[in-house]
Amino acid sequence: MASFSVKPPSGMRDFLPEEILRRRSVIAVISKIYEEHGFLPLETPTMERLDVLLGKYGEEGDRLVFKVLHRGAKLEKALEQQPVKTGDLAELGLRYDLTVPLARVYALHREKLGTMFKRYQIQPVWRADRPARGRFREFFQCDVDIIGSREVLAEMDIFMAVCEIMELLGFEDFSLHINHRGLLSATMEAFGVPKEKETEALVILDKLDKIGRDAVMAELEAKLGATDLGEKLAPLFNLVEEKGTFEDLKKYYATVSLSAQGVTALEELEKLHRWSSELGNTRLFFHPLLARGLDYYTGPIYELRLENESASLGGGGRYDGLIGSFCGGEIPAVGFSFGLERLLVLMEERGMFDSQGSESPVCIAALEEEHAAFALSCAASLRKNGVRVDIFPGVTSPSKVFKWADRSKVRFVILIGGEEVESGRLTVKDMSNGALHQDSLQGLHSFFKK
Amino acid sequence: MASFSVKPPSGMRDFLPEEILRRRSVIAVISKIYEEHGFLPLETPTMERLDVLLGKYGEEGDRLVFKVLHRGAKLEKALEQQPVKTGDLAELGLRYDLTVPLARVYALHREKLGTMFKRYQIQPVWRADRPARGRFREFFQCDVDIIGSREVLAEMDIFMAVCEIMELLGFEDFSLHINHRGLLSATMEAFGVPKEKETEALVILDKLDKIGRDAVMAELEAKLGATDLGEKLAPLFNLVEEKGTFEDLKKYYATVSLSAQGVTALEELEKLHRWSSELGNTRLFFHPLLARGLDYYTGPIYELRLENESASLGGGGRYDGLIGSFCGGEIPAVGFSFGLERLLVLMEERGMFDSQGSESPVCIAALEEEHAAFALSCAASLRKNGVRVDIFPGVTSPSKVFKWADRSKVRFVILIGGEEVESGRLTVKDMSNGALHQDSLQGLHSFFKK
Repeated sequence: MASFSVKPPSGMRDFLPEEILRRRSVIAVISKIYEEHGFLPLETPTMERLDVLLGKYGEEGDRLVFKVLHRGAKLEKALEQQPVKTGDLAELGLRYDLTVPLARVYALHREKLGTMFKRYQIQPVWRADRPARGRFREFFQCDVDIIGSREVLAEMDIFMAVCEIMELLGFEDFSLHINHRGLLSATMEAFGVPKEKETEALVILDKLDKIGRDAVMAELEAKLGATDLGEKLAPLFNLVEEKGTFEDLKKYYATVSLSAQGVTALEELEKLHRWSSELGNTRLFFHPLLARGLDYYTGPIYELRLENESASLGGGGRYDGLIGSFCGGEIPAVGFSFGLERLLVLMEERGMFDSQGSESPVCIAALEEEHAAFALSCAASLRKNGVRVDIFPGVTSPSKVFKWADRSKVRFVILIGGEEVESGRLTVKDMSNGALHQDSLQGLHSFFKK
Repeated sequence: MASFSVKPPSGMRDFLPEEILRRRSVIAVISKIYEEHGFLPLETPTMERLDVLLGKYGEEGDRLVFKVLHRGAKLEKALEQQPVKTGDLAELGLRYDLTVPLARVYALHREKLGTMFKRYQIQPVWRADRPARGRFREFFQCDVDIIGSREVLAEMDIFMAVCEIMELLGFEDFSLHINHRGLLSATMEAFGVPKEKETEALVILDKLDKIGRDAVMAELEAKLGATDLGEKLAPLFNLVEEKGTFEDLKKYYATVSLSAQGVTALEELEKLHRWSSELGNTRLFFHPLLARGLDYYTGPIYELRLENESASLGGGGRYDGLIGSFCGGEIPAVGFSFGLERLLVLMEERGMFDSQGSESPVCIAALEEEHAAFALSCAASLRKNGVRVDIFPGVTSPSKVFKWADRSKVRFVILIGGEEVESGRLTVKDMSNGALHQDSLQGLHSFFKK
C-alpha cells in the first residue's frame, strides 16, 4: 500500500474517459472552425528558457511561472554558493501562455512562416496560482493569432471564427465586448489623467465587472486623486450599463476632445462595427471601459462574454510590439484565446453535452480458454465492419461478465462457449432490456448496423 | 531584438503545421484502433508528486526526472538551511512515463473504474536524457493497458490491436518479439545463475541487439564468472539468429529442466502461439533472449520491431506488482507503449506520408477596404458548404496577394474589387496553372466541390 498520496498535485486534474470525450468534442469544434478559416496548427515545448518567459507577464505573472530545478553538476555548483541564489537554481520554466512561445517560434522560423502567418494552438499552460473553483494550475488555452496584418480586417477574421465556434458549440447568449487601447488611452488623456498614472487607472477600470461601478469610482478617486474623474466617466458607465449602441458611443465621443490616436482608434472600431452590420453579425458590443490586464496590448481588445455571467470565456487583442521584441522591427499581431476550462464548466452546467457514454457497445467474452481464438476472430470481424467491440480480457462465468457489462454500461454482450463455436450461431444479450437475439456472425453485421 | 536565444530548450522541439498534421494522422490511427478495441482514453497531469515518481524507474531513471523548483516561502525556507538539501528544493516532477500515473489514477478511482479497466493514454513524457538523433527530452508515448486480468488473453487483445495499428499505418515488415520473464528466470536458474545475479544477467542479455552475441557472452562470463553460461545459452542464440519457430523453442526447452514457474511461463507463451496461429496472425516471434530493461515486469514481455532496424518501435509487458504497490493487494496488469517519435521518423524515412499540405485551398482577398465585408461574406458562404477558405487579413495589391498565395501553397485565389461587388461575378485564379474561372458565388460552390 502506498505511503504517499495518490491524488494529483494541487490545482491539477486527472481526466477520466467521459470527461476526455467532452474536452475532445469541444477542442474538435474549435480546431475545425480555425482550420476552415485558414489557421494552421502550431505546437511548442512544455518548457521554455526563463529568459524567454520572464518579463512578459508583469511582476505578478513572473511569480507564477513554474521553474525547473537544475540537475547534476549545475545544481551542485549552485548549492556551493554562499548564499545560494534562486537565479542559479533554474534556467527553464513551464509555458505560462501560448503567445510568448508563438513570438519565439515566429522569430526563429520567420523565413519559413512568411510575413503573414495565421496559426492556432491548443495546449496546456501552467500557473502557480492559488487553486480555486474553476481555477487550475494546469489548464488548456486555445489560441488563434494573425501575425503580419496592421489592418482590423485581421480582428474581423478572428471575430467571425470565434462567433462560428460559439454557435457550433450551441451557445446562444454570447457577445464579444470590444474596446481599443488607443481610445482608452486618449480618453484618460482627455480627462486629465497623467500619462504615468494611465496603467494604474486601467487596472482599476478592469475590475468593473468584479467590484462594480461605485467601488471603481471610489478607487479611481482615492488612488489617482482625480476627484472629478468619476463624474467625467459617468456617461461611459451609463453606456455600458444600458448596453448602448455604437452610435451612442460615437455621439458621446463627439463631445470629448480626443487626440489623433484616439480618433484613429475610434475609426478602427467604427470599421468593425460597419462590417459586422453588413454581415448581419449582431454579436459585437462596444464596451468603452473594457481594459484587460496584459501590458502588451496596443490596439483593439476584446472579451467573449455570456449574458448574466461575470467571467469571460476568452479574450484577446492586438499586440504590435511583442513579436518585434523577439526578432527586431515592428511586427503587427492580433490574437484571441479561449479559456477551455470555463467553456467546459458552462457547457456542463447548462446541460449542453449529450450524455453519450465512452464505452464500447458490444462485448464478446469466451467462457473457456479453448474458445478464446474464436471469440477474438468474431471481434475482429465485427470491428472490420465498423462496430466497436471489446474483448473481455479474461475467461470467467457468464454472471461475472454480465455484472461487469452492466457496470461498464456495455449495451450488448455475446458469450462464446462450445455450442457457439460448433454451430456458428451467436446469441446477443441486450443489457438494456434483457432481450436475446440469435444470429450468424454475418447476420450480426447487419443487426449492429442498426 | 532579443538578447536571448529563440531556440527551443535542448532536446525539445517546436512543431510547425506540416509536422503536426503528420503527428496527428498517426495519433488518430492509434486512438481509433484502441477505441475500436474497447480501450477508454485517460489523461493525467504533467506534474506528479516526487514520491509517486521516484523509486519506480531504477536509479538511472530517477536521475532523469525533471523536478519543479519550490516557490515563495517554501523555497526561502529551504535556502536558509546550511547546507541546502536538494530534497528540500522540490516536491513535484514532470511525468517520466504513463504507467506510474496510470497506477496512481487507478488507486485513486478504483471504485469508479471497476475491477477490469482497459485504457489508452497518448501524452508527452519528459526525461533529462542526453539529447541525440531521435532521442528527445520531451516525447510522446502512446500507452495501452489492461488492468485486472491475470490471463494472457489480455496480452492477445493488445497484440491484435498493435498489429492492426501497424497495418493501418502501412507497415509490412513488423513483428512482435515475445518472451516471458518467468521463463527467463527459470532458464537462468536451470543454468546455475545465482538468484541475486539474475537481474545483472538480464541487463547484459538486453544488450544483445546493440552489442551482438560475442560481446554479450564475454560480458556474461566476465561479470557472472559463469564460464559455461555462454555455451549453455548457445542454442538460444542460434534460435534467435535463425528465427526459429515456437516448435523449435519448445523442442529446445524439453531438454532443459525448468522449474514449475518456467513450465507455466512456457505454457502461457504456447497459448499465445496457438491463438495467433488460429487467427492467422503471423506477426508473433518468440525471442527467448529478449529481456527488457524495466524492473517491474513479471510475465510476458514484448517488443515491436521492423526487419533490419535495430531499434524497437515500442514494447511492454505484464506487471502484476506495480499497481498493488499503490493501492494494496495484487492487481494484475499488462501494457504496451508505442514510441511515437520513432514511428514518425521511420514513416518519414520510408516516404509513408502523403505530401498533403496543411494550407487552405482557397484564399479571398479584398483590394479595397470598402469591399472587405463582401469578401468576408463570400468566405463565410463557401465555408458553410465545406470549403476551407482563408481571408487575406489585410488590404493590398493583387501582386502581393499572388506572391503570398504562391509561397503559402494556396491553390485558388479570388480577388474582390468594386466590379466583383457590383456584378456578383467572381474570378478564381488557379495558382497551379494560372487558369481563370469566372462564376457567381453559387456557381463556385459546385466548382470547388470538384
